[in-house]
Amino acid sequence: MPIKALAFDVFGTVVDWRSGVARDAGPVLAALRRSDIDPHRFADGWRHRYQPALEQVRSGRRPFVILDTLHREALEDLLREYAIDPTTIDEATLVHLTKAWHRLDPWPDSVDGLTRLKTRFPIVTLSNGNIALMVEMARRAHLPWDAILGAEVSRVYKPLPDAYLATARMLGIDPAELCLVAAHHSDLAAARACGLMTAYIDRPMEYGGRPAPDADQVQDWDHATTSIAALADRLADA
Amino acid sequence: MPIKALAFDVFGTVVDWRSGVARDAGPVLAALRRSDIDPHRFADGWRHRYQPALEQVRSGRRPFVILDTLHREALEDLLREYAIDPTTIDEATLVHLTKAWHRLDPWPDSVDGLTRLKTRFPIVTLSNGNIALMVEMARRAHLPWDAILGAEVSRVYKPLPDAYLATARMLGIDPAELCLVAAHHSDLAAARACGLMTAYIDRPMEYGGRPAPDADQVQDWDHATTSIAALADRLADA
Repeated sequence: MPIKALAFDVFGTVVDWRSGVARDAGPVLAALRRSDIDPHRFADGWRHRYQPALEQVRSGRRPFVILDTLHREALEDLLREYAIDPTTIDEATLVHLTKAWHRLDPWPDSVDGLTRLKTRFPIVTLSNGNIALMVEMARRAHLPWDAILGAEVSRVYKPLPDAYLATARMLGIDPAELCLVAAHHSDLAAARACGLMTAYIDRPMEYGGRPAPDADQVQDWDHATTSIAALADRLADA
Repeated sequence: MPIKALAFDVFGTVVDWRSGVARDAGPVLAALRRSDIDPHRFADGWRHRYQPALEQVRSGRRPFVILDTLHREALEDLLREYAIDPTTIDEATLVHLTKAWHRLDPWPDSVDGLTRLKTRFPIVTLSNGNIALMVEMARRAHLPWDAILGAEVSRVYKPLPDAYLATARMLGIDPAELCLVAAHHSDLAAARACGLMTAYIDRPMEYGGRPAPDADQVQDWDHATTSIAALADRLADA
């Protein structure tokens, strides 16, 4: 079946979360006189708390809450790990730092690639990020989404099957007509298990050059490129 | 409080449903040798079935279904009223005609107005239309939405309060920071009752020049203009 729409993972695939979070964490850590903490390591530690937090919701142990809430809780936990009591930090700073995830920069090819893909296909988010986060990020970074879909719309966190199936259903298309674009093999594997097409984007700097935690889950994806722009080149002839 | 985002009613406010539906119904009626039926009257009859269909869902008598489904049922009912048995029409024609609601043209000022407003505010849909409908319409008509929100996302049809409140919540703002833009006093009244700001756009041709059914529900809205472009002018200084 031909592809009728493209759904994008966002953190890591479209935007560089590690650099963006580090950029905004640096000044906060400096103000706390904790310049001993590497802001990139701080970003890694924050992201490390991501999957366990999502798993609380995916498993049903906790009702659905948006990612902003999980990011805030993870931030407080991370601060405590660094022996910083979050209750000693003013609320505006904590809110601002949590929203670093709204202010991530795209990889250099993302806007060009998305803009060209959009001329041919509807392009939507299929991210675990919440709507306000995705809207603010898109406005700041000029990501030309046709729609913000994903966790807050489907009320399900990836990689649960309904995250993928609900996105196809909301677009009025068959799962086989929807292609997930992601830098993560684990995400693509879950999408493929639901019948979606798959496009892998290699982002070797997502973890600062270290291997991705799901590197061993590689498969022979329907498409595999080193940028969204290259995917646009490839699908221009599809 | 200052406005932080604009949420738009779409059918009638941004796009001209009557002309668009008539344009696509005309050839179908001609092929059925029913050129005696005025396509604009046909559009009116279709839209007339809209609120009763929504009310089935709003009242809880029926689980949530998307507007495409309600439009299809209303079409079949309308055809029967004109003594046309819908089962004698091929499925592709019925699907195509139902999707006339995906192919509505914007009012002449809509794209310019939205494009200018978007430079200053997030602009989202707060329509009873479903996501696939809104995405196809936006791509065809170049409506630059930041997000497609509304009924299918909130699972609630306007004018129930949670349609408005959920939209503010998903944008991460207070209801008083969200402004509903609509050509319908009834919609604005419901939004105001939820604490939203209100902007009325006068669309005298929505019903072909006849008065709107909710003309008696006029109030002193926060803003009132004759086009979305004029609203952009007005809010440029706000």
